Amino acid sequence: MNGGGSGPVLNALDRLVVLLSKLPGIGRKSAGRMAYHILESDPNYARTLAEQLQTLHSAIRRCSICGSFTEADPCPICTDPNRDSLTICVVERAQDVRVIEESREFRGRFHVLGGLIAPLEGIGPDKLAIGDLLNRVRRDGVKEVILAMNPTVEGDTTALYLQRQLKDSGAEVTRLASGLPVGGDLEYADRLTLSRSFRGRMKL
Amino acid sequence: MNGGGSGPVLNALDRLVVLLSKLPGIGRKSAGRMAYHILESDPNYARTLAEQLQTLHSAIRRCSICGSFTEADPCPICTDPNRDSLTICVVERAQDVRVIEESREFRGRFHVLGGLIAPLEGIGPDKLAIGDLLNRVRRDGVKEVILAMNPTVEGDTTALYLQRQLKDSGAEVTRLASGLPVGGDLEYADRLTLSRSFRGRMKL
Repeated sequence: MNGGGSGPVLNALDRLVVLLSKLPGIGRKSAGRMAYHILESDPNYARTLAEQLQTLHSAIRRCSICGSFTEADPCPICTDPNRDSLTICVVERAQDVRVIEESREFRGRFHVLGGLIAPLEGIGPDKLAIGDLLNRVRRDGVKEVILAMNPTVEGDTTALYLQRQLKDSGAEVTRLASGLPVGGDLEYADRLTLSRSFRGRMKL
Repeated sequence: MNGGGSGPVLNALDRLVVLLSKLPGIGRKSAGRMAYHILESDPNYARTLAEQLQTLHSAIRRCSICGSFTEADPCPICTDPNRDSLTICVVERAQDVRVIEESREFRGRFHVLGGLIAPLEGIGPDKLAIGDLLNRVRRDGVKEVILAMNPTVEGDTTALYLQRQLKDSGAEVTRLASGLPVGGDLEYADRLTLSRSFRGRMKL
């Protein structure tokens, strides 16, 4: 039935809604709003978006050095002579590279692990790009490894594991500070965040 | 500039993010998350989505009777003999048809206005499918016209205008109840909603 989307006969609009609702953070309502927006927009928009999606997987690959997504391999960050090759920021996923790049806070290189250690889900260190990291650190004589995984149980576990693995590598191992978010309110901070912000307090 | 998206050289991933962030309710962060999700998913997903987008505008048109989006013209709702053709629900936009259909609350036909009267934006009654509605009501001898526009200034203006236009049509004109949302809390209701829920109070 047209517009319903719950009947067995799906029309082109319903099929688009179903596909869009598979995207992260997009429920059925948002997917519907998006589909109607596309339908009411200039058809050129849908065409350009379709072309971009068609070519995405052939245009983008993983950088063979750092594991981030790139058109050219090695990626522009790994080949940029103006970036500090002796400082490596280790992140969980390729999209974390984008987030950190947008902050313009870091001018070194990256290393994408491709996940976090999660024994309950069967993800051990061997499933992650940890061997590559250790090789890079030793081969290039890296001075500092900044661990930038999220402050979660898996992030903490992975950070601890990497810290141990890198102990004798000669590189200093640091981790991003965890604590109250800027603009946040003590009253709304959870106990763990508060506890971390105490432990990480800094002298003024 | 890989991953930055703010530099002048956009790669395939950045271009996808820019396109996705034009969708309603999708900011740069969500668009980034969506793009990476697509990149990390089975390429078949991107391909299917691309195909759906390519064919969308040729597959879907507006129903010549009610104005909703459909593959077949007239749409399945307008041609469904099991639906009450003497009750018309008038909505602002085609996507409102979907919302109401999903509630399974209404078994009549629809009429899409294509907007609301908004003098400040230069949208007068002549820009909307109001003439078509009046013709339908008279021609088919419609018994009830349910006005289902949102309870906003423009929705109220349009409802008032339609009510006047339909006065001598023989059809009863009703409007969706406005008041406290189910599960809502008096404490968080705004003054106007509260005022409407008083005016629309019902005898138990």
